[in-house]
Amino acid sequence: MAGIVDLHLIGIGTGNPEHLTLAAIRAMNAADLILLPRKGEAKSDLIDLRRAICAEVLTGDTRVVEFDLPVRSTVPPYLDGVGEWHAAIAEVWSAQIDAYLPHGGVLALLVWGDPSLYDSTLRIAERLQRQGRALKVHVVPGITSIQVLTAAHGIALNTLAAPLTITTGRRLREEGWPQDAETLVVMLDGACAFAALPPEGLTIWWGAYLGMPQQCLIAGDLADVGAQIQRRRAELREEHGWIMDIYLLRRTV
Amino acid sequence: MAGIVDLHLIGIGTGNPEHLTLAAIRAMNAADLILLPRKGEAKSDLIDLRRAICAEVLTGDTRVVEFDLPVRSTVPPYLDGVGEWHAAIAEVWSAQIDAYLPHGGVLALLVWGDPSLYDSTLRIAERLQRQGRALKVHVVPGITSIQVLTAAHGIALNTLAAPLTITTGRRLREEGWPQDAETLVVMLDGACAFAALPPEGLTIWWGAYLGMPQQCLIAGDLADVGAQIQRRRAELREEHGWIMDIYLLRRTV
Repeated sequence: MAGIVDLHLIGIGTGNPEHLTLAAIRAMNAADLILLPRKGEAKSDLIDLRRAICAEVLTGDTRVVEFDLPVRSTVPPYLDGVGEWHAAIAEVWSAQIDAYLPHGGVLALLVWGDPSLYDSTLRIAERLQRQGRALKVHVVPGITSIQVLTAAHGIALNTLAAPLTITTGRRLREEGWPQDAETLVVMLDGACAFAALPPEGLTIWWGAYLGMPQQCLIAGDLADVGAQIQRRRAELREEHGWIMDIYLLRRTV
Repeated sequence: MAGIVDLHLIGIGTGNPEHLTLAAIRAMNAADLILLPRKGEAKSDLIDLRRAICAEVLTGDTRVVEFDLPVRSTVPPYLDGVGEWHAAIAEVWSAQIDAYLPHGGVLALLVWGDPSLYDSTLRIAERLQRQGRALKVHVVPGITSIQVLTAAHGIALNTLAAPLTITTGRRLREEGWPQDAETLVVMLDGACAFAALPPEGLTIWWGAYLGMPQQCLIAGDLADVGAQIQRRRAELREEHGWIMDIYLLRRTV
């Protein structure tokens, strides 16, 4: 019978080790085991960064173990592929827990950005609980790429007392500009969904590799800078082998 | 002729000193002057917290000066009152800069949550720049109350790959549930706007004093817990003399 596992999902910000909060550092050091996912060669910058963060902040005898993250099927429909992928990750976590924490203990996972925003770790943890695993989940908030985007551009997320919507590239592509929206933040966009919008009256603030040394920012009227962002994004992706970017669109007329 | 002022707007999270990031601590220590606003007796907990954070993290000769924040007119229309209030705050900042940094230097302001989200400091800084003040603005992101709310409840902000909207209590009251919205985060709500919604099919996750020792959480079907939240909120406000709370609503059917 396996013991109880306290699972800490720790937001680590978006690539700048100084995004770490004091709570994140404390939670990392309180862990018996930190699992670091390897996501394949192209994104090796990301595991290097997590390794560097562990080397820098761990002061005790926390054990750090790397594991290979299962690859997500990209065969449509999208949501089916995600479900299978989460199941496969849950299985890998289970195997690691059985191997390294057979009698229970404190496990930590370092989550890019914040564990609540477009991240699957909370859902995978729930899946393990449903399977009967004795898992108590704790969340440590982290700085999201949205906050790093607005900070880097020196802009507010909302206009005065106005609402905003956060969505994905897929939704924007499939459904177009949401009715009544003034401010739209677009995440998880692998294919420049903004390019399909009528650009008149829209301003864009775009950022890639936010918080990292290779950070790149472009802002302006969408009609003026849209094509430039597409070109720059393709070049950067070619140069680094991977890219993560987000953008804020605001209707200004 | 006044010198150039580097103004750092530093997000400090929502009341737990451990929300501070390493970048925030570094920026605080790099400042010549930190200005702390006094907001009147009722919210004295908030300046006490900022004072404690300064005492804990400042290691050099950064000067900490307190000033009285002008009071906002609550006479409608709302946006006029806000404009006048920002002008009055800009004037007070100017006076403090003239008094303490007459030849320029590095000024820091500690912002509750994140400077990009429902906060006026960026707008007040722009106002000073428009008035001809030589001010260079830098933003250090901080953990928002939204992130602390979802972390405390152990929930994701979005459902799988779905969008979400962030709005204010005033907007929800005036315009009702936004068309097509599934997830709605409501901030700046002084009067329980959720109580006017048809509660069927809505789940609420509510939190007050997030991150602080007096943190209070209630979650459930809105039909079941709405009245309980209203009662508890009134009791807590009475007990502490002030309250800050936010909530997430999700349409579950």
